[in-house]
Amino acid sequence: MSSSEDGRLARLSLNQRTIPRWTLPELVDRCAGAGIGAVGLWREPVAEYGLARTARLVRDAGLRVSSLCRGGFFTSADPAEWKAAVDDNLRAVDDAADLQADCLMLVVGGVPAGSTDLVGARTRVQEALAELAPAARDRGVRLAVEPLHPMFCADRSVISTLRQALRVAELAEADLPPLPENRTAGPTVGVTVDAYHVWWDPDVAEAIAEAGPRILSFQVCDWILPLAADVLLARGMMGDGQIALRSLRRAVDAAGYTGDIEVEIFNQEIWDRDGDAVLATVVERYLGHVL
Amino acid sequence: MSSSEDGRLARLSLNQRTIPRWTLPELVDRCAGAGIGAVGLWREPVAEYGLARTARLVRDAGLRVSSLCRGGFFTSADPAEWKAAVDDNLRAVDDAADLQADCLMLVVGGVPAGSTDLVGARTRVQEALAELAPAARDRGVRLAVEPLHPMFCADRSVISTLRQALRVAELAEADLPPLPENRTAGPTVGVTVDAYHVWWDPDVAEAIAEAGPRILSFQVCDWILPLAADVLLARGMMGDGQIALRSLRRAVDAAGYTGDIEVEIFNQEIWDRDGDAVLATVVERYLGHVL
Repeated sequence: MSSSEDGRLARLSLNQRTIPRWTLPELVDRCAGAGIGAVGLWREPVAEYGLARTARLVRDAGLRVSSLCRGGFFTSADPAEWKAAVDDNLRAVDDAADLQADCLMLVVGGVPAGSTDLVGARTRVQEALAELAPAARDRGVRLAVEPLHPMFCADRSVISTLRQALRVAELAEADLPPLPENRTAGPTVGVTVDAYHVWWDPDVAEAIAEAGPRILSFQVCDWILPLAADVLLARGMMGDGQIALRSLRRAVDAAGYTGDIEVEIFNQEIWDRDGDAVLATVVERYLGHVL
Repeated sequence: MSSSEDGRLARLSLNQRTIPRWTLPELVDRCAGAGIGAVGLWREPVAEYGLARTARLVRDAGLRVSSLCRGGFFTSADPAEWKAAVDDNLRAVDDAADLQADCLMLVVGGVPAGSTDLVGARTRVQEALAELAPAARDRGVRLAVEPLHPMFCADRSVISTLRQALRVAELAEADLPPLPENRTAGPTVGVTVDAYHVWWDPDVAEAIAEAGPRILSFQVCDWILPLAADVLLARGMMGDGQIALRSLRRAVDAAGYTGDIEVEIFNQEIWDRDGDAVLATVVERYLGHVL
Protein backbone atom coordinates (compact mmCIF):
# COMPACT_ATOMS: atom_id res chain seq x y z
CA MET A 1 0.00 0.00 0.00
CA SER A 2 1.46 3.37 -0.99
CA SER A 3 1.52 6.28 1.42
CA SER A 4 -1.17 8.04 -0.64
CA GLU A 5 -3.51 5.11 -0.20
CA ASP A 6 -3.16 4.74 3.54
CA GLY A 7 -4.39 8.27 4.24
CA ARG A 8 -1.19 9.43 5.90
CA LEU A 9 -0.93 12.28 3.41
CA ALA A 10 -4.46 13.56 4.02
CA ARG A 11 -3.25 16.55 6.04
CA LEU A 12 -0.22 17.30 3.88
CA SER A 13 -0.40 20.50 1.85
CA LEU A 14 2.12 21.76 -0.67
CA ASN A 15 2.63 25.50 -0.83
CA GLN A 16 3.02 26.35 -4.49
CA ARG A 17 6.14 28.47 -3.93
CA THR A 18 7.96 25.30 -2.89
CA ILE A 19 7.93 24.25 -6.55
CA PRO A 20 7.39 27.57 -8.32
CA ARG A 21 8.26 26.16 -11.74
CA TRP A 22 4.96 24.30 -11.85
CA THR A 23 1.92 25.92 -13.42
CA LEU A 24 -1.30 25.76 -11.42
CA PRO A 25 -2.61 22.80 -13.47
CA GLU A 26 0.70 20.98 -12.96
CA LEU A 27 0.62 21.68 -9.23
CA VAL A 28 -2.93 20.46 -8.83
CA ASP A 29 -2.38 17.42 -11.02
CA ARG A 30 0.77 16.30 -9.19
CA CYS A 31 -0.63 16.92 -5.70
CA ALA A 32 -3.90 15.14 -6.40
CA GLY A 33 -1.95 12.31 -8.00
CA ALA A 34 0.26 11.93 -4.94
CA GLY A 35 -2.71 11.76 -2.57
CA ILE A 36 -1.89 15.10 -0.97
CA GLY A 37 -4.91 16.77 0.60
CA ALA A 38 -4.37 20.45 -0.09
CA VAL A 39 -2.34 23.19 -1.73
CA GLY A 40 -1.23 26.60 -0.47
CA LEU A 41 -1.66 29.29 -3.12
CA TRP A 42 -0.26 32.77 -3.79
CA ARG A 43 -2.30 35.68 -5.06
CA GLU A 44 -0.06 36.58 -8.02
CA PRO A 45 -0.05 33.19 -9.82
CA VAL A 46 -3.74 32.78 -8.98
CA ALA A 47 -4.55 36.16 -10.55
CA GLU A 48 -2.53 35.22 -13.60
CA TYR A 49 -4.37 31.94 -14.08
CA GLY A 50 -7.69 33.48 -13.13
CA LEU A 51 -9.39 33.39 -9.74
CA ALA A 52 -12.58 31.53 -10.70
CA ARG A 53 -10.63 29.20 -12.96
CA THR A 54 -8.23 28.36 -10.11
CA ALA A 55 -11.08 27.75 -7.69
CA ARG A 56 -12.69 25.34 -10.17
CA LEU A 57 -9.40 23.59 -10.96
CA VAL A 58 -8.65 22.91 -7.32
CA ARG A 59 -12.20 21.89 -6.40
CA ASP A 60 -12.51 19.54 -9.38
CA ALA A 61 -9.31 17.78 -8.31
CA GLY A 62 -10.73 17.24 -4.83
CA LEU A 63 -8.09 19.40 -3.13
CA ARG A 64 -8.49 21.97 -0.36
CA VAL A 65 -6.77 25.38 -0.35
CA SER A 66 -4.94 25.39 2.96
CA SER A 67 -3.96 29.04 2.72
CA LEU A 68 -3.91 32.02 0.42
CA CYS A 69 -0.61 33.89 0.63
CA ARG A 70 -0.76 36.68 1.36
CA GLY A 71 -2.15 39.86 2.76
CA GLY A 72 -0.53 42.27 5.17
CA PHE A 73 2.09 45.03 4.92
CA PHE A 74 0.06 47.39 7.08
CA THR A 75 2.83 49.46 8.64
CA SER A 76 3.21 52.50 6.42
CA ALA A 77 3.16 55.77 8.37
CA ASP A 78 1.72 57.49 5.31
CA PRO A 79 -2.10 57.49 5.67
CA ALA A 80 -2.73 57.12 1.93
CA GLU A 81 -0.33 54.18 1.67
CA TRP A 82 -1.81 52.58 4.77
CA LYS A 83 -5.32 52.96 3.31
CA ALA A 84 -4.18 51.47 -0.01
CA ALA A 85 -2.78 48.46 1.88
CA VAL A 86 -6.07 47.97 3.71
CA ASP A 87 -8.01 48.21 0.44
CA ASP A 88 -5.73 45.66 -1.18
CA ASN A 89 -6.27 43.38 1.78
CA LEU A 90 -10.04 43.70 1.42
CA ARG A 91 -9.60 42.40 -2.13
CA ALA A 92 -7.44 39.57 -0.77
CA VAL A 93 -10.28 38.66 1.61
CA ASP A 94 -12.60 38.39 -1.38
CA ASP A 95 -10.05 36.24 -3.21
CA ALA A 96 -9.70 33.94 -0.21
CA ALA A 97 -13.49 33.61 0.00
CA ASP A 98 -13.78 32.77 -3.70
CA LEU A 99 -11.06 30.13 -3.34
CA GLN A 100 -12.63 28.78 -0.13
CA ALA A 101 -9.15 29.08 1.33
CA ASP A 102 -8.81 27.86 4.88
CA CYS A 103 -7.20 31.17 5.82
CA LEU A 104 -5.70 34.35 4.42
CA MET A 105 -2.07 34.57 5.54
CA LEU A 106 -1.05 37.97 6.86
CA VAL A 107 2.58 39.13 6.89
CA VAL A 108 2.07 42.39 8.72
CA GLY A 109 5.01 44.50 7.49
CA GLY A 110 8.22 45.85 8.96
CA VAL A 111 9.44 49.13 10.39
CA PRO A 112 9.10 51.72 7.61
CA ALA A 113 12.40 52.61 5.90
CA GLY A 114 14.25 55.36 7.73
CA SER A 115 12.12 55.00 10.86
CA THR A 116 12.86 53.60 14.31
CA ASP A 117 9.22 53.65 15.40
CA LEU A 118 8.59 49.96 16.01
CA VAL A 119 5.79 50.74 18.46
CA GLY A 120 3.96 52.93 15.93
CA ALA A 121 4.29 50.25 13.26
CA ARG A 122 2.67 47.71 15.57
CA THR A 123 -0.18 50.10 16.33
CA ARG A 124 -0.93 50.49 12.63
CA VAL A 125 -1.10 46.70 12.26
CA GLN A 126 -3.75 46.54 14.97
CA GLU A 127 -5.69 49.38 13.30
CA ALA A 128 -5.59 47.62 9.94
CA LEU A 129 -6.89 44.39 11.45
CA ALA A 130 -9.80 46.33 12.95
CA GLU A 131 -10.73 47.38 9.39
CA LEU A 132 -10.31 43.93 7.90
CA ALA A 133 -11.82 41.63 10.49
CA PRO A 134 -15.51 42.61 9.98
CA ALA A 135 -15.20 42.11 6.21
CA ALA A 136 -13.45 38.79 6.74
CA ARG A 137 -16.15 37.55 9.09
CA ASP A 138 -18.87 38.62 6.67
CA ARG A 139 -17.24 36.59 3.93
CA GLY A 140 -16.39 33.61 6.12
CA VAL A 141 -12.65 34.14 5.75
CA ARG A 142 -10.22 33.53 8.59
CA LEU A 143 -7.26 35.88 8.97
CA ALA A 144 -4.04 34.16 10.03
CA VAL A 145 -1.56 36.56 11.61
CA GLU A 146 1.86 35.09 10.97
CA PRO A 147 4.70 35.89 13.34
CA LEU A 148 7.88 36.05 11.29
CA HIS A 149 11.35 35.21 12.54
CA PRO A 150 12.85 38.27 14.30
CA MET A 151 15.47 38.58 11.55
CA PHE A 152 12.60 39.97 9.44
CA CYS A 153 11.42 42.52 12.02
CA ALA A 154 12.83 45.55 10.21
CA ASP A 155 11.66 44.71 6.71
CA ARG A 156 8.72 42.28 6.81
CA SER A 157 7.03 41.74 10.16
CA VAL A 158 6.94 43.71 13.39
CA ILE A 159 5.16 40.69 14.85
CA SER A 160 7.94 38.32 15.83
CA THR A 161 6.60 35.79 18.32
CA LEU A 162 3.62 33.48 18.42
CA ARG A 163 2.42 34.89 21.73
CA GLN A 164 2.58 38.42 20.33
CA ALA A 165 0.59 37.34 17.26
CA LEU A 166 -1.94 35.70 19.54
CA ARG A 167 -2.45 38.89 21.57
CA VAL A 168 -2.91 40.89 18.36
CA ALA A 169 -5.43 38.35 17.04
CA GLU A 170 -7.36 38.29 20.31
CA LEU A 171 -7.59 42.08 20.37
CA ALA A 172 -8.83 42.18 16.78
CA GLU A 173 -11.44 39.52 17.54
CA ALA A 174 -12.58 41.34 20.69
CA ASP A 175 -13.23 44.49 18.64
CA LEU A 176 -15.63 42.74 16.25
CA PRO A 177 -19.32 43.61 16.56
CA PRO A 178 -21.43 40.86 18.18
CA LEU A 179 -22.61 38.06 15.88
CA PRO A 180 -26.29 37.70 14.97
CA GLU A 181 -27.84 35.07 17.23
CA ASN A 182 -28.22 32.49 14.47
CA ARG A 183 -24.50 32.46 13.69
CA THR A 184 -22.06 30.17 15.45
CA ALA A 185 -18.78 31.65 16.49
CA GLY A 186 -15.35 30.41 15.51
CA PRO A 187 -12.32 32.66 15.49
CA THR A 188 -12.13 35.06 12.56
CA VAL A 189 -8.65 36.22 13.51
CA GLY A 190 -6.04 33.66 14.46
CA VAL A 191 -2.39 32.82 14.02
CA THR A 192 -0.03 30.81 11.85
CA VAL A 193 2.54 28.51 13.40
CA ASP A 194 5.39 28.34 10.91
CA ALA A 195 8.11 26.11 12.36
CA TYR A 196 10.82 28.14 10.64
CA HIS A 197 9.73 31.36 12.30
CA VAL A 198 9.05 30.12 15.83
CA TRP A 199 11.26 27.11 16.58
CA TRP A 200 13.88 29.11 18.53
CA ASP A 201 11.33 30.67 20.92
CA PRO A 202 11.74 29.50 24.53
CA ASP A 203 8.00 30.06 25.02
CA VAL A 204 6.80 28.37 21.84
CA ALA A 205 5.32 25.26 23.48
CA GLU A 206 3.30 27.32 25.97
CA ALA A 207 2.25 29.77 23.25
CA ILE A 208 1.00 26.92 21.03
CA ALA A 209 -1.04 25.53 23.92
CA GLU A 210 -2.49 28.96 24.64
CA ALA A 211 -3.32 29.55 20.99
CA GLY A 212 -5.49 26.42 20.81
CA PRO A 213 -8.40 27.04 18.42
CA ARG A 214 -6.76 30.21 17.10
CA ILE A 215 -4.15 28.15 15.26
CA LEU A 216 -5.35 28.52 11.68
CA SER A 217 -2.30 27.22 9.85
CA PHE A 218 0.75 25.06 10.52
CA GLN A 219 3.71 25.29 8.16
CA VAL A 220 6.92 23.30 8.08
CA CYS A 221 10.40 23.38 6.58
CA ASP A 222 13.81 23.34 8.30
CA TRP A 223 16.52 25.70 9.55
CA ILE A 224 19.75 24.92 7.74
CA LEU A 225 23.27 26.28 8.13
CA PRO A 226 25.01 28.26 6.86
CA LEU A 227 22.25 30.82 6.37
CA ALA A 228 21.83 31.65 2.68
CA ALA A 229 23.26 35.04 1.69
CA ASP A 230 19.66 36.09 0.99
CA VAL A 231 17.90 35.03 4.18
CA LEU A 232 14.55 34.99 2.38
CA LEU A 233 15.80 31.89 0.58
CA ALA A 234 17.41 30.21 3.59
CA ARG A 235 14.75 27.58 4.26
CA GLY A 236 15.67 23.93 4.04
CA MET A 237 13.88 20.64 3.42
CA MET A 238 12.44 18.96 6.51
CA GLY A 239 15.04 16.69 8.04
CA ASP A 240 18.01 18.62 6.63
CA GLY A 241 18.26 21.04 9.55
CA GLN A 242 17.89 21.62 13.25
CA ILE A 243 14.20 22.07 13.98
CA ALA A 244 12.50 19.42 16.13
CA LEU A 245 9.59 19.29 13.67
CA ARG A 246 7.81 16.25 15.07
CA SER A 247 7.80 17.75 18.53
CA LEU A 248 6.27 20.98 17.19
CA ARG A 249 3.68 19.00 15.21
CA ARG A 250 2.71 17.10 18.35
CA ALA A 251 2.35 20.37 20.29
CA VAL A 252 0.14 21.84 17.56
CA ASP A 253 -1.97 18.68 17.47
CA ALA A 254 -2.25 18.66 21.27
CA ALA A 255 -3.54 22.23 21.08
CA GLY A 256 -6.46 20.88 19.04
CA TYR A 257 -5.32 21.74 15.53
CA THR A 258 -6.67 19.28 12.98
CA GLY A 259 -5.97 21.29 9.81
CA ASP A 260 -3.46 20.94 7.04
CA ILE A 261 0.29 20.77 7.47
CA GLU A 262 1.72 22.95 4.76
CA VAL A 263 5.22 22.59 3.38
CA GLU A 264 6.63 25.97 2.36
CA ILE A 265 10.28 26.10 1.28
CA PHE A 266 11.99 29.03 -0.41
CA ASN A 267 15.37 27.74 -1.52
CA GLN A 268 17.07 28.35 -4.84
CA GLU A 269 18.79 24.98 -4.86
CA ILE A 270 15.46 23.19 -4.34
CA TRP A 271 13.76 25.43 -6.90
CA ASP A 272 16.39 24.35 -9.45
CA ARG A 273 15.58 20.65 -8.99
CA ASP A 274 13.03 18.62 -10.90
CA GLY A 275 9.57 19.21 -9.45
CA ASP A 276 8.55 15.57 -9.23
CA ALA A 277 11.77 14.73 -7.36
CA VAL A 278 11.12 17.58 -4.91
CA LEU A 279 7.56 16.40 -4.31
CA ALA A 280 8.76 12.85 -3.68
CA THR A 281 11.25 14.19 -1.11
CA VAL A 282 8.58 16.37 0.51
CA VAL A 283 6.37 13.30 0.97
CA GLU A 284 9.19 11.15 2.30
CA ARG A 285 10.41 13.80 4.73
CA TYR A 286 6.89 14.62 5.87
CA LEU A 287 6.34 10.99 6.79
CA GLY A 288 9.78 10.61 8.36
CA HIS A 289 10.23 13.90 10.21
CA VAL A 290 6.84 15.53 10.76
CA LEU A 291 4.08 12.96 11.04
CA MET B 1 34.38 72.69 25.50
CA SER B 2 34.89 69.44 23.65
CA SER B 3 32.68 66.43 24.31
CA SER B 4 35.54 64.68 26.09
CA GLU B 5 35.89 67.54 28.54
CA ASP B 6 32.25 67.82 29.52
CA GLY B 7 32.08 64.25 30.82
CA ARG B 8 29.44 63.12 28.37
CA LEU B 9 31.73 60.33 27.18
CA ALA B 10 32.41 58.96 30.67
CA ARG B 11 30.14 55.94 30.14
CA LEU B 12 31.15 55.31 26.53
CA SER B 13 33.16 52.16 25.92
CA LEU B 14 34.70 51.01 22.65
CA ASN B 15 34.73 47.29 22.03
CA GLN B 16 38.04 46.54 20.36
CA ARG B 17 36.49 44.47 17.58
CA THR B 18 34.82 47.66 16.30
CA ILE B 19 38.27 48.79 15.10
CA PRO B 20 40.16 45.50 14.90
CA ARG B 21 43.05 47.03 12.95
CA TRP B 22 44.26 48.83 16.07
CA THR B 23 46.82 47.18 18.33
CA LEU B 24 46.03 47.23 22.03
CA PRO B 25 48.37 50.21 22.66
CA GLU B 26 46.70 52.10 19.78
CA LEU B 27 43.24 51.29 21.11
CA VAL B 28 44.08 52.42 24.62
CA ASP B 29 45.89 55.54 23.43
CA ARG B 30 43.04 56.67 21.15
CA CYS B 31 40.27 55.92 23.63
CA ALA B 32 42.02 57.68 26.51
CA GLY B 33 42.81 60.59 24.22
CA ALA B 34 39.17 60.92 23.21
CA GLY B 35 37.97 60.96 26.81
CA ILE B 36 36.22 57.60 26.50
CA GLY B 37 35.82 55.81 29.83
CA ALA B 38 36.35 52.17 28.98
CA VAL B 39 37.25 49.51 26.45
CA GLY B 40 35.73 46.11 25.73
CA LEU B 41 38.42 43.49 25.15
CA TRP B 42 38.63 40.06 23.52
CA ARG B 43 40.59 37.14 24.91
CA GLU B 44 42.61 36.36 21.77
CA PRO B 45 44.25 39.79 21.23
CA VAL B 46 44.71 40.10 24.99
CA ALA B 47 46.53 36.75 25.12
CA GLU B 48 48.67 37.81 22.19
CA TYR B 49 49.72 41.07 23.85
CA GLY B 50 49.98 39.43 27.27
CA LEU B 51 47.40 39.40 30.02
CA ALA B 52 49.36 41.21 32.73
CA ARG B 53 50.76 43.65 30.19
CA THR B 54 47.24 44.46 28.93
CA ALA B 55 45.95 44.95 32.46
CA ARG B 56 48.78 47.39 33.19
CA LEU B 57 48.36 49.23 29.88
CA VAL B 58 44.66 49.83 30.43
CA ARG B 59 45.01 50.74 34.11
CA ASP B 60 47.88 53.17 33.44
CA ALA B 61 45.73 54.96 30.87
CA GLY B 62 42.94 55.38 33.42
CA LEU B 63 40.49 53.23 31.45
CA ARG B 64 38.06 50.59 32.69
CA VAL B 65 37.52 47.21 31.01
CA SER B 66 33.78 47.15 30.45
CA SER B 67 33.74 43.52 29.34
CA LEU B 68 35.93 40.60 28.41
CA CYS B 69 34.65 38.80 25.33
CA ARG B 70 34.07 35.99 25.64
CA GLY B 71 33.29 32.75 27.34
CA GLY B 72 30.51 30.31 26.60
CA PHE B 73 29.89 27.59 24.00
CA PHE B 74 28.60 25.16 26.57
CA THR B 75 26.21 23.10 24.45
CA SER B 76 28.23 20.13 23.25
CA ALA B 77 26.46 16.82 23.88
CA ASP B 78 29.87 15.13 24.16
CA PRO B 79 30.85 15.05 27.85
CA ALA B 80 34.57 15.50 27.16
CA GLU B 81 33.92 18.50 24.89
CA TRP B 82 31.50 20.00 27.40
CA LYS B 83 34.10 19.59 30.17
CA ALA B 84 36.79 21.18 28.00
CA ALA B 85 34.50 24.15 27.42
CA VAL B 86 33.88 24.54 31.15
CA ASP B 87 37.62 24.36 31.83
CA ASP B 88 38.33 26.99 29.20
CA ASN B 89 35.68 29.19 30.79
CA LEU B 90 37.33 28.80 34.19
CA ARG B 91 40.48 30.21 32.59
CA ALA B 92 38.40 33.03 31.12
CA VAL B 93 37.14 33.82 34.62
CA ASP B 94 40.75 34.14 35.76
CA ASP B 95 41.54 36.39 32.80
CA ALA B 96 38.55 38.61 33.59
CA ALA B 97 39.66 38.86 37.22
CA ASP B 98 43.23 39.79 36.23
CA LEU B 99 41.90 42.48 33.88
CA GLN B 100 39.40 43.70 36.49
CA ALA B 101 36.83 43.44 33.72
CA ASP B 102 33.37 44.57 34.66
CA CYS B 103 31.99 41.25 33.39
CA LEU B 104 32.83 38.15 31.41
CA MET B 105 30.55 37.98 28.38
CA LEU B 106 29.00 34.55 27.77
CA VAL B 107 27.76 33.45 24.36
CA VAL B 108 26.29 30.15 25.38
CA GLY B 109 26.47 28.13 22.14
CA GLY B 110 24.00 26.79 19.60
CA VAL B 111 22.29 23.50 18.86
CA PRO B 112 25.07 20.97 18.14
CA ALA B 113 25.55 20.21 14.44
CA GLY B 114 23.25 17.43 13.26
CA SER B 115 21.05 17.68 16.34
CA THR B 116 17.53 19.00 16.88
CA ASP B 117 17.76 18.85 20.67
CA LEU B 118 17.32 22.50 21.57
CA VAL B 119 16.01 21.61 25.02
CA GLY B 120 19.06 19.45 25.82
CA ALA B 121 21.41 22.21 24.66
CA ARG B 122 19.74 24.65 27.04
CA THR B 123 20.05 22.19 29.90
CA ARG B 124 23.80 21.89 29.32
CA VAL B 125 24.13 25.68 29.47
CA GLN B 126 22.50 25.72 32.88
CA GLU B 127 24.77 22.90 34.04
CA ALA B 128 27.89 24.74 32.85
CA LEU B 129 26.84 27.90 34.69
CA ALA B 130 26.47 25.87 37.86
CA GLU B 131 30.14 24.90 37.48
CA LEU B 132 31.34 28.41 36.68
CA ALA B 133 29.39 30.59 39.05
CA PRO B 134 31.16 29.56 42.30
CA ALA B 135 34.58 30.17 40.72
CA ALA B 136 33.40 33.50 39.36
CA ARG B 137 32.12 34.64 42.73
CA ASP B 138 35.35 33.57 44.42
CA ARG B 139 37.33 35.70 42.00
CA GLY B 140 34.92 38.65 42.05
CA VAL B 141 33.99 38.18 38.39
CA ARG B 142 30.47 38.77 37.12
CA LEU B 143 29.14 36.47 34.40
CA ALA B 144 27.00 38.23 31.79
CA VAL B 145 24.71 35.82 29.95
CA GLU B 146 24.11 37.38 26.55
CA PRO B 147 20.92 36.56 24.69
CA LEU B 148 21.74 36.52 20.98
CA HIS B 149 19.36 37.40 18.17
CA PRO B 150 17.25 34.32 17.29
CA MET B 151 18.93 34.14 13.88
CA PHE B 152 21.93 32.74 15.81
CA CYS B 153 19.97 30.11 17.75
CA ALA B 154 21.22 27.15 15.71
CA ASP B 155 24.90 28.07 15.62
CA ARG B 156 25.78 30.43 18.49
CA SER B 157 23.20 30.85 21.24
CA VAL B 158 20.25 28.78 22.38
CA ILE B 159 19.44 31.74 24.64
CA SER B 160 17.51 34.14 22.43
CA THR B 161 15.59 36.59 24.62
CA LEU B 162 16.48 38.82 27.51
CA ARG B 163 13.83 37.30 29.74
CA GLN B 164 15.16 33.82 29.01
CA ALA B 165 18.69 34.95 29.85
CA LEU B 166 17.40 36.47 33.06
CA ARG B 167 15.72 33.22 34.14
CA VAL B 168 18.93 31.30 33.42
CA ALA B 169 20.99 33.82 35.39
CA GLU B 170 18.59 33.77 38.34
CA LEU B 171 18.68 29.97 38.46
CA ALA B 172 22.48 29.94 38.40
CA GLU B 173 22.60 32.52 41.17
CA ALA B 174 20.09 30.59 43.28
CA ASP B 175 22.29 27.50 43.08
CA LEU B 176 25.33 29.26 44.57
CA PRO B 177 26.31 28.30 48.11
CA PRO B 178 25.47 30.98 50.70
CA LEU B 179 28.00 33.79 51.12
CA PRO B 180 30.12 34.10 54.27
CA GLU B 181 28.52 36.65 56.60
CA ASN B 182 31.20 39.27 56.04
CA ARG B 183 30.62 39.39 52.27
CA THR B 184 28.08 41.69 50.68
CA ALA B 185 25.99 40.24 47.93
CA GLY B 186 25.69 41.60 44.41
CA PRO B 187 24.71 39.42 41.48
CA THR B 188 27.43 37.10 40.22
CA VAL B 189 25.37 35.98 37.25
CA GLY B 190 23.51 38.57 35.21
CA VAL B 191 22.67 39.50 31.65
CA THR B 192 23.85 41.60 28.75
CA VAL B 193 21.47 43.90 26.93
CA ASP B 194 22.82 44.21 23.40
CA ALA B 195 20.48 46.43 21.40
CA TYR B 196 21.21 44.51 18.21
CA HIS B 197 20.08 41.22 19.72
CA VAL B 198 16.97 42.35 21.61
CA TRP B 199 15.44 45.39 19.88
CA TRP B 200 12.75 43.37 18.03
CA ASP B 201 11.42 41.70 21.21
CA PRO B 202 7.86 42.79 22.09
CA ASP B 203 8.71 42.15 25.76
CA VAL B 204 12.07 43.90 25.85
CA ALA B 205 10.98 46.93 27.89
CA GLU B 206 9.39 44.75 30.58
CA ALA B 207 12.35 42.37 30.57
CA ILE B 208 14.81 45.26 31.05
CA ALA B 209 12.77 46.53 34.00
CA GLU B 210 12.66 43.05 35.51
CA ALA B 211 16.39 42.55 35.02
CA GLY B 212 17.25 45.64 37.08
CA PRO B 213 20.52 45.04 38.95
CA ARG B 214 21.24 41.94 36.89
CA ILE B 215 22.03 44.09 33.86
CA LEU B 216 25.80 43.79 33.74
CA SER B 217 26.44 45.20 30.28
CA PHE B 218 24.72 47.40 27.71
CA GLN B 219 25.92 47.28 24.11
CA VAL B 220 24.84 49.34 21.12
CA CYS B 221 25.05 49.37 17.33
CA ASP B 222 22.28 49.42 14.74
CA TRP B 223 20.21 47.08 12.57
CA ILE B 224 20.77 47.97 8.92
CA LEU B 225 19.22 46.65 5.72
CA PRO B 226 19.85 44.75 3.60
CA LEU B 227 21.30 42.15 5.94
CA ALA B 228 24.93 41.42 5.04
CA ALA B 229 25.43 38.07 3.27
CA ASP B 230 27.34 36.97 6.38
CA VAL B 231 24.93 37.91 9.16
CA LEU B 232 27.79 37.94 11.69
CA LEU B 233 28.98 41.13 9.98
CA ALA B 234 25.57 42.75 9.54
CA ARG B 235 25.82 45.31 12.34
CA GLY B 236 25.63 48.99 11.50
CA MET B 237 26.77 52.26 13.06
CA MET B 238 24.35 53.82 15.51
CA GLY B 239 21.95 56.10 13.65
CA ASP B 240 22.29 54.26 10.34
CA GLY B 241 19.52 51.78 11.05
CA GLN B 242 16.18 51.08 12.65
CA ILE B 243 16.77 50.54 16.36
CA ALA B 244 15.30 53.10 18.76
CA LEU B 245 18.60 53.25 20.65
CA ARG B 246 17.84 56.23 22.88
CA SER B 247 14.62 54.63 24.05
CA LEU B 248 16.47 51.39 24.92
CA ARG B 249 19.19 53.37 26.74
CA ARG B 250 16.54 55.18 28.78
CA ALA B 251 14.91 51.86 29.70
CA VAL B 252 18.26 50.41 30.79
CA ASP B 253 19.02 53.54 32.83
CA ALA B 254 15.55 53.46 34.39
CA ALA B 255 16.24 49.88 35.46
CA GLY B 256 19.14 51.21 37.52
CA TYR B 257 22.05 50.45 35.21
CA THR B 258 24.87 52.97 35.66
CA GLY B 259 27.65 51.06 33.88
CA ASP B 260 29.37 51.53 30.56
CA ILE B 261 27.66 51.75 27.20
CA GLU B 262 29.76 49.67 24.86
CA VAL B 263 29.84 50.13 21.12
CA GLU B 264 30.36 46.82 19.34
CA ILE B 265 30.13 46.79 15.55
CA PHE B 266 31.18 43.93 13.29
CA ASN B 267 31.01 45.31 9.76
CA GLN B 268 33.56 44.83 7.01
CA GLU B 269 32.92 48.23 5.48
CA ILE B 270 33.55 49.94 8.83
CA TRP B 271 36.60 47.74 9.46
CA ASP B 272 38.04 48.92 6.16
CA ARG B 273 37.84 52.60 7.18
CA ASP B 274 40.48 54.63 8.96
CA GLY B 275 40.31 53.93 12.70
CA ASP B 276 40.40 57.56 13.82
CA ALA B 277 37.52 58.40 11.49
CA VAL B 278 35.49 55.48 12.86
CA LEU B 279 36.14 56.58 16.44
CA ALA B 280 35.04 60.13 15.63
CA THR B 281 31.82 58.78 14.14
CA VAL B 282 31.25 56.51 17.14
CA VAL B 283 31.53 59.51 19.47
CA GLU B 284 29.27 61.68 17.33
CA ARG B 285 26.61 58.99 16.96
CA TYR B 286 26.77 58.07 20.64
CA LEU B 287 26.03 61.68 21.55
CA GLY B 288 23.37 62.08 18.87
CA HIS B 289 21.54 58.75 19.01
CA VAL B 290 22.22 57.03 22.32
CA LEU B 291 22.86 59.55 25.08
